[in-house]
Amino acid sequence: MENFVFHNPVKILFGKGQIANIGAEIPADAKILITYGGGSIKANGVYDQVKSALAGRDVLEFGGIEPNPHFETLMKAVELVRKEGIDFLLAVGGGSVADGTKFIAAAVPFEGDPWDILAKQATVTKAVPLGVVLTLPATGSEMNVNAVVTKAATQEKLYFGSSAVYPRFSVLDPETTFSLPTRQISNGIVDAYTHVMEQYLTFPVNAPLQDRMAESILKTLIEEGPKTLANPTDYDARANFMWSATMALNGLIGAGVPQDWVTHMIGHELTALHGLDHAQTLAIVLPSTLTVRRKGKWEKLLQYGERVWGIVTGTEEERVEQAIAKTRDFFESVGVPTRLGAYGVGLESIPVIQARFEQRGMVALGEKQDVNPQVVEQILSLCA
Amino acid sequence: MENFVFHNPVKILFGKGQIANIGAEIPADAKILITYGGGSIKANGVYDQVKSALAGRDVLEFGGIEPNPHFETLMKAVELVRKEGIDFLLAVGGGSVADGTKFIAAAVPFEGDPWDILAKQATVTKAVPLGVVLTLPATGSEMNVNAVVTKAATQEKLYFGSSAVYPRFSVLDPETTFSLPTRQISNGIVDAYTHVMEQYLTFPVNAPLQDRMAESILKTLIEEGPKTLANPTDYDARANFMWSATMALNGLIGAGVPQDWVTHMIGHELTALHGLDHAQTLAIVLPSTLTVRRKGKWEKLLQYGERVWGIVTGTEEERVEQAIAKTRDFFESVGVPTRLGAYGVGLESIPVIQARFEQRGMVALGEKQDVNPQVVEQILSLCA
Repeated sequence: MENFVFHNPVKILFGKGQIANIGAEIPADAKILITYGGGSIKANGVYDQVKSALAGRDVLEFGGIEPNPHFETLMKAVELVRKEGIDFLLAVGGGSVADGTKFIAAAVPFEGDPWDILAKQATVTKAVPLGVVLTLPATGSEMNVNAVVTKAATQEKLYFGSSAVYPRFSVLDPETTFSLPTRQISNGIVDAYTHVMEQYLTFPVNAPLQDRMAESILKTLIEEGPKTLANPTDYDARANFMWSATMALNGLIGAGVPQDWVTHMIGHELTALHGLDHAQTLAIVLPSTLTVRRKGKWEKLLQYGERVWGIVTGTEEERVEQAIAKTRDFFESVGVPTRLGAYGVGLESIPVIQARFEQRGMVALGEKQDVNPQVVEQILSLCA
Repeated sequence: MENFVFHNPVKILFGKGQIANIGAEIPADAKILITYGGGSIKANGVYDQVKSALAGRDVLEFGGIEPNPHFETLMKAVELVRKEGIDFLLAVGGGSVADGTKFIAAAVPFEGDPWDILAKQATVTKAVPLGVVLTLPATGSEMNVNAVVTKAATQEKLYFGSSAVYPRFSVLDPETTFSLPTRQISNGIVDAYTHVMEQYLTFPVNAPLQDRMAESILKTLIEEGPKTLANPTDYDARANFMWSATMALNGLIGAGVPQDWVTHMIGHELTALHGLDHAQTLAIVLPSTLTVRRKGKWEKLLQYGERVWGIVTGTEEERVEQAIAKTRDFFESVGVPTRLGAYGVGLESIPVIQARFEQRGMVALGEKQDVNPQVVEQILSLCA
């Protein structure tokens, strides 16, 4: 096992009716800004629950945060927070609203151009405190330090992370997700699954507990994912999926083990250039990543095949191929196509993506630092 | 799944050499009290590492905290902390030192008689901040809110818990445990295993991720426990055991599921009355608890037998019996006898324990609130 530091202070309020308890989690005298997206929270009753829980409190609102939240939009919220002297941000929505709100939180006290937080990985040491009411299980943003923001003007989708933007609390009420469109649940399953794979499917470092916990999440997603798609109001299935998605990216299964993240880095480019949903890009890229890089991931692919998919017969090569095929089949089975062609996208952007990786100096990626822009090109070529 | 709140802000510094980093985790101007036990930390080099990491800082010491730490001893430390104006407590040792230090931390600012924290479950809202350098993997105290303290004068072993006594950080360096006596490692394996069982072996509430994570810890203890006993300086085996013991009782696997804890409650009485090691009492009581209460735990016993021990043949009754027998055999195999007789203890204290449960109003215990003093008597009768 590798040395690690694990520190996740997010308070999780999980279950039916938990939104009613958020008042106690926000300082009594705080001036609160509720941030949200396209307004689905007003249709599904979540907005009313939040307002009711904050009745009598000093509350402003900022709506319209996009999927793949735009830097341009978020900077308007930054202005508002500065102007109004907001003390607490309450993100109500899915991963994009949570991510966007983390960026707002970091940008407000940032000295200099906040774009540097994303483009230059400028250090974030302070942030406006924030909480999350999660309405879409997928990204894990509710219990981690990560945020991804897109600059619409330049089609750049960039990441930052800082312990300063850990939510103070996150509410996970499965009932708030019952009205989600099927596509978003399908995407959430693929997103959570891929988050686990990025931390698990690397090479062994003798960390059996981390491995088993990762496999536990994968098996639960395989079991509960189809159930929650088939019956969106099955509380337990939705709750199990929701908790799996949070556990998939809260730092725990990645503590003390190597991590990959190449699938995400390539996927972000496909979203930025073609507007594909984040999870769609992961479904497209992961099987290709595993195929192109299978030699370096050999032992873990065999272990994954056996423990998660029950693949125990055949040659090693056959078992590795089966394990990758099972992954692709699972994504397809939950309704997320795994080929660029299914989305009407060709291979024309490969040179652009390759050039971007080179330009940013992303030349030694993945758990073995052996993924350079040429490998990225090979992976993308297999995505057709 | 049941509703839950999960909040564990302990920062874990895991791995070789991590003690060197504690200076940055303690406020620069803090007056620090190092608390420890019988002095093994001076023999194994841990004391020197801690002193070196805190060179130039304002540091006092308080040694002599016993296994099953005594209220009487801890109150001497409370006096010292108050007199010297200590700002930060650093527990260096195993679970007893951590537990004792949590009690000191809570007792210092407590208004009234600190014994009430234990005897009357008086609410603890503030505490002196503390950190832990763990030298014995077992209790999980390094990443939870729990503490158990014994009043020597009356042979009472009592519990308290408060989020105010979460350690600010805990250092887990497997190398610091290499010199531990075999008996303490054996005990630690049984302790961690039983912690998982208290949260897992109840009844199903459709929480498959929690179940699988619990089974992950059990399987890892079964796999790594014997390895670390056979080769105490095998770093990975010790690291995997150490992280399993922490994960066994940091709140995660118990979130959203029923919990038992009857084995612990009975075990504490056996320690208080007969001086048995904590883990010895768990090894004695758990198989009997599972036997006496098997009807209420039926489905989980079958699941446990199948998933953890691979028991898939025979009638349900046979499989349940096998699962319990496997548990007993495992404890024996790691060197912890599972019968009172092996420790020279008879059944003479059963009436005393039964009376204590009655006297404290402990008449509806366990995950189904169906364990009364008569059931406790049945469980103890099977421990001979």
